[in-house]
Amino acid sequence: MAKLVEFIPNFSEGRNQAVIDQLAAVAKSVPGITLMDVQSDESHNRCVFTLVGSPEGAEEVAFQLCKKAAELIDMRKHEGAHPRMGATDVIPFVPVKDVTVPELVELTKRLGKRIYDELGIPSFLYEDSATSPDRVNLAKVRKGQFEGMPEKLLQPEWAPDFGERKIHPTAGITAIGARMPLVAFNVNLGTSNLEIANKIAKIVRGSSGGFKYCKAIGVMLEDRNLAQVSMNMVNYEGTPLYRVFELIRIEAERYGVPIIGTEVVGLTPAKALVDCAEYYLKVENFDYHKQVLENHLIG
Amino acid sequence: MAKLVEFIPNFSEGRNQAVIDQLAAVAKSVPGITLMDVQSDESHNRCVFTLVGSPEGAEEVAFQLCKKAAELIDMRKHEGAHPRMGATDVIPFVPVKDVTVPELVELTKRLGKRIYDELGIPSFLYEDSATSPDRVNLAKVRKGQFEGMPEKLLQPEWAPDFGERKIHPTAGITAIGARMPLVAFNVNLGTSNLEIANKIAKIVRGSSGGFKYCKAIGVMLEDRNLAQVSMNMVNYEGTPLYRVFELIRIEAERYGVPIIGTEVVGLTPAKALVDCAEYYLKVENFDYHKQVLENHLIG
Repeated sequence: MAKLVEFIPNFSEGRNQAVIDQLAAVAKSVPGITLMDVQSDESHNRCVFTLVGSPEGAEEVAFQLCKKAAELIDMRKHEGAHPRMGATDVIPFVPVKDVTVPELVELTKRLGKRIYDELGIPSFLYEDSATSPDRVNLAKVRKGQFEGMPEKLLQPEWAPDFGERKIHPTAGITAIGARMPLVAFNVNLGTSNLEIANKIAKIVRGSSGGFKYCKAIGVMLEDRNLAQVSMNMVNYEGTPLYRVFELIRIEAERYGVPIIGTEVVGLTPAKALVDCAEYYLKVENFDYHKQVLENHLIG
Repeated sequence: MAKLVEFIPNFSEGRNQAVIDQLAAVAKSVPGITLMDVQSDESHNRCVFTLVGSPEGAEEVAFQLCKKAAELIDMRKHEGAHPRMGATDVIPFVPVKDVTVPELVELTKRLGKRIYDELGIPSFLYEDSATSPDRVNLAKVRKGQFEGMPEKLLQPEWAPDFGERKIHPTAGITAIGARMPLVAFNVNLGTSNLEIANKIAKIVRGSSGGFKYCKAIGVMLEDRNLAQVSMNMVNYEGTPLYRVFELIRIEAERYGVPIIGTEVVGLTPAKALVDCAEYYLKVENFDYHKQVLENHLIG
C-alpha cells in the first residue's frame, strides 16, 4: 500500500490573492500531491495550505513552495496579528498512512538542509524533529518573531538547525517538524463548577503528571452552563482517547459529577476512534491496516 | 466528495487462467474503476473479482464483464463444487462512500435491464434489490442451479426480474443485488457450554425476534474450549455492533458468564467501529463524513 503524508505549510501572506494563487499553482505542480485546502486570513495576513501525498512528492513540493514563497514574500514589509518569523513560517508533516513519525523526522531534516543549501533560508526543527527539548514547542521557537530573530540567533542555545546564525534577509527563517496528528477532544461534565474541570484537567494532562500526550485545561461552556475538560490529544496511539475518558469519568465520580457528553472537534484519523471501539468491544487481534476497508482505498 | 461503490462479480471459471485474465483485462478497462482483488478456486471452478469505483463506472464495467463472460464461458460444460447458475453468477453492489443502498438498487435495475436487452441474459434481483421476500436470499434464488433453471423459471413465482422465462443457452442467468457491507463479528464467552452460546445467539438474531440485521449461531471454539456467538452483521447502521455486544453481555450475565473477547473477521468499514466509539465515548454531534480524515482521501 502507498505511503501517505499530510503537510500543512503556513505562509506569511493572507491579503494578496495573486501571491496565494501562485503558491497554490506550485502546490498542484507535483504529481501525486493533492492540495486539499487553502485557508487565508486577512487580519492574520497568513495562509495555510493542507496537502496530502507521497513522502517523496511532499518533500519536493515543500521545497518548491519555500522557493516560491521566498520569491514572492518580503518579510520586511509583513504585518499581521499572527506570530511569524518566515515567508514560509512553519511546515508540519503528519503521517496519514503506512508512514511513521521517525521517517518524517528524516524527511524534515533533508528538507531543512536543502532549503539552506539551495535557497539560503535557515530553519529550526520542532516537535518530534526537535534537536533539543527547548525546540519542541513552536511558540518557544518562534518567540521574538521575524524582527527579533537576528538577535535571538546569536544566543548560544538558538543556532538554527540548518544554516548560519543569521536569517534570510527577506524570507526570514522557517520551522519544520514531524508530529502525530492532533485530535481535539472535549469532555463535558454535569456541573457548572469550573473548579472541578480545572482539577480534572490537571490530573489528566502530561505537564502535571497525567498522560504524556494529553494537553488539557478546564473551560466553562457559558451557553450550556457546563464545565468542560478541553483537550488536545497530541498522540492518540501513545495516549488513546478512551483512557483519558475513563480517567475523567472516575475522577469526576468523586465529586458526584457525571460525564454528560463529549466532542471531537474538527478532523480526526479514523484510527483514533477505532482504537476506542476495539477497547470497549474487547476485540482481539484486530489488524487496523489490513482489516479496515478504507485503508485499501486511499493512497 | 466522490461517490464510491464496491462490487464483487462472481464468474463460473476457476481453472482456465486465460479466461480469468481476459475478464481481468475488461475489469481494468474502465477509467475510475480499480480491480482490487481476484480470487479463483479450482475445486469451486469459480473466480471472484473485487472492484471499487464510481457508480457510473461500476455499472458500465459490470455490463462489459457480463458480456465478456458470456463470450468465454459455456455453462453447459461447467462443473464445480460451488452452486452456480450463470457465467456471471452473481454481482453484489455495496456502498463504500457517499452512496446509498437505494441508489445502488436503481443501478442494479438498470444493469439487469441492459444485460437482457443487449445480451439476452435474464437476471434475478436479490438482497435489497429483491422484488419479493422470496428473492432476498441468494441461496433460494440460485436453488436448482444452471441445470434446474429452465424448469424453475416456468414456476409461477420464479419469472426472472428481467427477461423471459428461459435462460441464456450458454450464459444461464445472473443474480444482481445491492446490499450493505457485512461485518463478521464473533463474541467469545467465558464458558465451554455451547448451550449458552446457542441460547444467546437465538436472542440476538433477527430471525427469532432479536435485532433485525443480525444473523447469529452458537459455535464451539474447540482449541480454546470456549463457546462463541458467531454473527454476521448485515447492516451495521441498522443494528450497530455495540448494541449486540451489550445485549450479549447482559444475557450472559444471568449465567454468570463474562465476555472474554471478540473478533472482527476480515474487512470492516471503519464506520462500523467508529459508531461504537461514539457510543461509548458519548460523542455528541459527530459528522462521520466530514470529520474523519480518511473520508477526504478516498475516491
